[in-house]
Amino acid sequence: MIMKRILFFTLLICLSGATGFAQPTDTLNLLPRPLSTKISAGRFNFTADFNIGINGPESGKFIAAVNRFYLQLGRRVNINFSQEFISAADNDANARLYVTYNKAIAPAIGMDESYSLKVNPDKIIISAATDIGAERALETLYQLISPDKNGFYCPLVEVNDSPRFKWRGLMIDVARHFIPFEVLKRNIDAMAIVKLNVLHLHLSDDEGFRVESKVFPLLQQKGSNGYYYTQDQIRELVGYAHDRGIIVVPEFDLPGHCSSILAAYPYLASYPSDYKPGQRYKLDSIKNLNLGKIMQLISSMPTPTIDPTKESTYTFFDKFIKEMSGLFTDPYFHAGADENNGVAWKQNTDIAAFMQNKGMKNTDELQAYFVKRMYDIAKKYNKRLIGWEEAFNQAIPQDVIVQKWKPSGIGPTLNTGEVVQHGNQVIISAGYYLDLFMPAYIHYQTDPVPADLNQADAAKGILGGEAAQWSELMDGNNEEIRVWPRAAAIAERFWSPANVNDVDDMYRRLWATDFDLNERAINESFAYQKVLSLWVNDVDLGPVRTLADVCTPVKGYKRLMGGMFANGKGRTNPTSPLVNIADMAHSDSETGWYFRQSVAAYLKSHNDADLQAVKYQLQKWQNNKARFDAVSGYAPYPRQISDLSDNLSAAAAIGLQALSGEGNKDNQLKQLQQMVKPLHEVQIAILPGIEALISGTLKPEPASYPMF
Amino acid sequence: MIMKRILFFTLLICLSGATGFAQPTDTLNLLPRPLSTKISAGRFNFTADFNIGINGPESGKFIAAVNRFYLQLGRRVNINFSQEFISAADNDANARLYVTYNKAIAPAIGMDESYSLKVNPDKIIISAATDIGAERALETLYQLISPDKNGFYCPLVEVNDSPRFKWRGLMIDVARHFIPFEVLKRNIDAMAIVKLNVLHLHLSDDEGFRVESKVFPLLQQKGSNGYYYTQDQIRELVGYAHDRGIIVVPEFDLPGHCSSILAAYPYLASYPSDYKPGQRYKLDSIKNLNLGKIMQLISSMPTPTIDPTKESTYTFFDKFIKEMSGLFTDPYFHAGADENNGVAWKQNTDIAAFMQNKGMKNTDELQAYFVKRMYDIAKKYNKRLIGWEEAFNQAIPQDVIVQKWKPSGIGPTLNTGEVVQHGNQVIISAGYYLDLFMPAYIHYQTDPVPADLNQADAAKGILGGEAAQWSELMDGNNEEIRVWPRAAAIAERFWSPANVNDVDDMYRRLWATDFDLNERAINESFAYQKVLSLWVNDVDLGPVRTLADVCTPVKGYKRLMGGMFANGKGRTNPTSPLVNIADMAHSDSETGWYFRQSVAAYLKSHNDADLQAVKYQLQKWQNNKARFDAVSGYAPYPRQISDLSDNLSAAAAIGLQALSGEGNKDNQLKQLQQMVKPLHEVQIAILPGIEALISGTLKPEPASYPMF
Repeated sequence: MIMKRILFFTLLICLSGATGFAQPTDTLNLLPRPLSTKISAGRFNFTADFNIGINGPESGKFIAAVNRFYLQLGRRVNINFSQEFISAADNDANARLYVTYNKAIAPAIGMDESYSLKVNPDKIIISAATDIGAERALETLYQLISPDKNGFYCPLVEVNDSPRFKWRGLMIDVARHFIPFEVLKRNIDAMAIVKLNVLHLHLSDDEGFRVESKVFPLLQQKGSNGYYYTQDQIRELVGYAHDRGIIVVPEFDLPGHCSSILAAYPYLASYPSDYKPGQRYKLDSIKNLNLGKIMQLISSMPTPTIDPTKESTYTFFDKFIKEMSGLFTDPYFHAGADENNGVAWKQNTDIAAFMQNKGMKNTDELQAYFVKRMYDIAKKYNKRLIGWEEAFNQAIPQDVIVQKWKPSGIGPTLNTGEVVQHGNQVIISAGYYLDLFMPAYIHYQTDPVPADLNQADAAKGILGGEAAQWSELMDGNNEEIRVWPRAAAIAERFWSPANVNDVDDMYRRLWATDFDLNERAINESFAYQKVLSLWVNDVDLGPVRTLADVCTPVKGYKRLMGGMFANGKGRTNPTSPLVNIADMAHSDSETGWYFRQSVAAYLKSHNDADLQAVKYQLQKWQNNKARFDAVSGYAPYPRQISDLSDNLSAAAAIGLQALSGEGNKDNQLKQLQQMVKPLHEVQIAILPGIEALISGTLKPEPASYPMF
Repeated sequence: MIMKRILFFTLLICLSGATGFAQPTDTLNLLPRPLSTKISAGRFNFTADFNIGINGPESGKFIAAVNRFYLQLGRRVNINFSQEFISAADNDANARLYVTYNKAIAPAIGMDESYSLKVNPDKIIISAATDIGAERALETLYQLISPDKNGFYCPLVEVNDSPRFKWRGLMIDVARHFIPFEVLKRNIDAMAIVKLNVLHLHLSDDEGFRVESKVFPLLQQKGSNGYYYTQDQIRELVGYAHDRGIIVVPEFDLPGHCSSILAAYPYLASYPSDYKPGQRYKLDSIKNLNLGKIMQLISSMPTPTIDPTKESTYTFFDKFIKEMSGLFTDPYFHAGADENNGVAWKQNTDIAAFMQNKGMKNTDELQAYFVKRMYDIAKKYNKRLIGWEEAFNQAIPQDVIVQKWKPSGIGPTLNTGEVVQHGNQVIISAGYYLDLFMPAYIHYQTDPVPADLNQADAAKGILGGEAAQWSELMDGNNEEIRVWPRAAAIAERFWSPANVNDVDDMYRRLWATDFDLNERAINESFAYQKVLSLWVNDVDLGPVRTLADVCTPVKGYKRLMGGMFANGKGRTNPTSPLVNIADMAHSDSETGWYFRQSVAAYLKSHNDADLQAVKYQLQKWQNNKARFDAVSGYAPYPRQISDLSDNLSAAAAIGLQALSGEGNKDNQLKQLQQMVKPLHEVQIAILPGIEALISGTLKPEPASYPMF
């Protein structure tokens, strides 16, 4: 993010050290990496006579895209180009950038997104089968723009590219905490940059219903805290996404996860209650229980659930899906179907009788019945039904799309092979849950195709994948910090060949992409600075930033469990402030990554330049305590996390000791071990590097992290 | 803005100097300053049991406002309050914050915005006549929130407040460069914070037409480069403004400034031409002319102008105003009427014949006829007509509102007294043109009431004022830098009593308000950092920021004239990049202001702490050259402005010399004088402070600056 590389480059500048790996232009910054790239010597220089010609059938969205590109390019290279703006009439084949496409299409799963891009010394040529392929090419071209002291240029390359998977999605939960409309638009801009093509919106859950319904207005009136998207906004959003070659898939989570819907229309419920939007588990009293006990309670408690046995239920959802189908014009409808434990159904004698009459052996079969009914309604309105993995059952139709999500290790998960054998297609989200606070490489190393699936089944059955960000611990203010830049690493996994999997190279490109994302799409960097500035009441941001930059939130479900069950009113409520260090810290520490590279370089070379680079950084951290303490009087938060600041300083001091060969190694390691324990729900990311300075060996990053 | 105070506080922390004026909480940060404020010892502490009760008639917008306040407050003080959110049913008179209002109203000019606010040790009470008054009170309360190391609190105060003027506007030109929808929303948020109540949108000009018309769709299709607001967006925007007690006034500039309209419907024109949206003066060839000659040419050239003699013109505008009246629901319609030199009319023989038939002596009378016809149409649709000062003529109806804009010193300007005598009301924008790059104090010291107007006429005739920001040199990326925080100083001029006019105290509060604006409303600080990061390709931002922070754009119309007439394709076109230092530099240098305070303190005290504070800053600037040069290789822009960087360093060196009593004073002053000359359209703001270190006397800031 903006300014994060400062520290590192300041260091390079100060030391004139030759650590080698930090040259920003030593290789291309393309992310996702294209199918094939050939680099030649030389460059295409941007000059005032740069212009664009287009050869292809009329496409309003492509004209808009090329003008966006043109404006952003002019701004980036700071040249007032002579062409005013680009219209369909600008078809000069001699233009410096000449774009040809054969067909203008609407975005759809399976569309042709391929393109070729050739940068010659005096001319750039893009060819694509479709206007959307040409849009993808413009994004690649933008990522090639490089500056040096003389000006901006593109290296000479020939790119041939097309995606590995058809479905490359990002799911955002806008229900638990509402995500403002303009934040969604910024996410769409970012998705386009990294070539994602499906925005999946989780629009309803226990905590809130987030779309205006004119047929059932109580849904937003009683089912939300006043925050929802108007129908005008949805239309604008869908158009905005389509212009960028992205489809929008709405999800309304049923038959469980529906307190907000039942608050509006309680007659849909499986049992009578005073329904209100809010957390479905009110487990304040069990905060001292262990995980097993909590899981047991959760699986045995009735939760707000739609009654699937009444015809009035389907009359309601027929009208509702009809209305939503008019708003969300892409041919998919996601009906949720996850985490229904069936207890509410078992406890209702009418429902039990219904099951008996129909010869259903268990609530799974009743759920399959519900899914089939929803499938029929969706089909009536030309939508293909999608459900989370619990929607799968041998009884469901073959053209239901199944979304795999459950992490391995906590109960049974979907057998992808079985689903594909049954004839259904699968979207993989297991391994891509951004809300687990895992570093990007964990997701990056997860292939969407399960290892045990044969090639033919994979080609037929794996539609693609989706990064998913649930919003118990996310709101409009930190959504961009949570999703980006990690979603870009996952985007590469979905677009690029499986053998593009060098983690260090991915990270190098990820930081460059993050800068671009902040320049052209998202406000991640600003969101972070804003809250850190609040911590110190606009007095010196530096020391709190130095601390927060090397912290990462505890991984897995630990924060969520703490947030839901502790503190009386859980932190995961829609109105809880999310402005602590664990809410702001990135799941990857960029500074931590650069430090790790420094340590690795030093341990390999043992030369003085690399030593000085490591030392410079450690001294800065060691000295940060004094600076941190100096700002601690201006507002209460720094004092609350001063133990963390003290640890950073102490850890750096140990590192410096180790570098100078002082102290007892065992004691040093023991002291360091004390600091690994999370404080304030974060961990210090540089500890493994310091440990390596003591032991002389940098351990590889863990291949996985525990969920709890 | 965020991080701008860092430098200064770092300095304080480093030196533990007691310069006295920088304590962030030494007085309240209220801006605009209320009519009356009584402070007592003690404080109201924010704790988890904070809650809100409301007593007043149903008001959806107030419920929304109070929930926005509540969410922002929770986030600011980082407390998870026990109240979930506030509904109309929350009417507990024992709540920690209790709000009473008597009437729910729609925003309107002349509405009752008064309120009282009393902060007791354990309870805050707001009373207002209207829900909008109560909204104003919430903004005041938010500005009272203060932190120290123990927590957040409000000082005990009793505020009684109401505005001096009814009309407190901000005009944004969205025509020349399009300003994105979300940027407008952020401006509305900022306006609400400083209690402005009119958003005036300049929606059409030669360069573009920016609203979707369904009746005349060519207006946006041929009259823009594809960027305009949809009708859905306008409806959303007006609702968004109304929720915040702000009305929206649309302006469509007629009969001149209309190339974009004529590009769509050329039959409306006074002469045939191939009309296209774009600059109306194509004066590339005259770039070497002096100002007088340019002015003479401008006044003698025919420019795109509506034909006011044809009935078809009024048929068109009847339909158009009818359509726009449905979108912009507030009862005002601004028809422009500025800068029509009449040449196009004089040259058309049919128009000349029409004038003769009607016995009109000059084109001013024809313009008055046009204004009267527009007035009649506006009235038909229940809108009151507004026009720029050229709309005034003894023949126009008394209920036309006249907006005064012309700066004194370049030709005749409106005689406000004459207008008021005639019975018309006046909105003052002369003195509040933000696009002139003047520092805030210049606007702040301009009273809306002309000195020669008697009190009775002023009370009757001066409706209020409007800050105005034209967009020849502004786009969506720097709009917030251009408008904020200066518009906040003008907002105080319109709200607070005339005798609230201490410039230093205004600036102190302005910097605090700017922080709040960036936290809750605008992205000004991020917009600035984004472009500076581009200059150095995401390598160390520090040295370019140190330079840009002390630069201010050249004042008056100098940049505009250069931008319109130089460079072949003028920089003021809608697609020109605006990313140079003059586009980014603020019209007030906050760092420069703090330095000036430091110098003043030192010249008064001559003590060592104050000396060290000045020295610390000068050394930083002196050393900045080396840091700046070090980042100059990463992208081309720093090298382009390295002469400016050299000057900053050299000026600081002179200051340090002077402090240590070395060197020849005359030579030093002479050297400094060389640096006053603008480079790259900016000036270095700290030169007067350095001059004072040489001469021993800090000259007062100029009372005015030349326009050209």
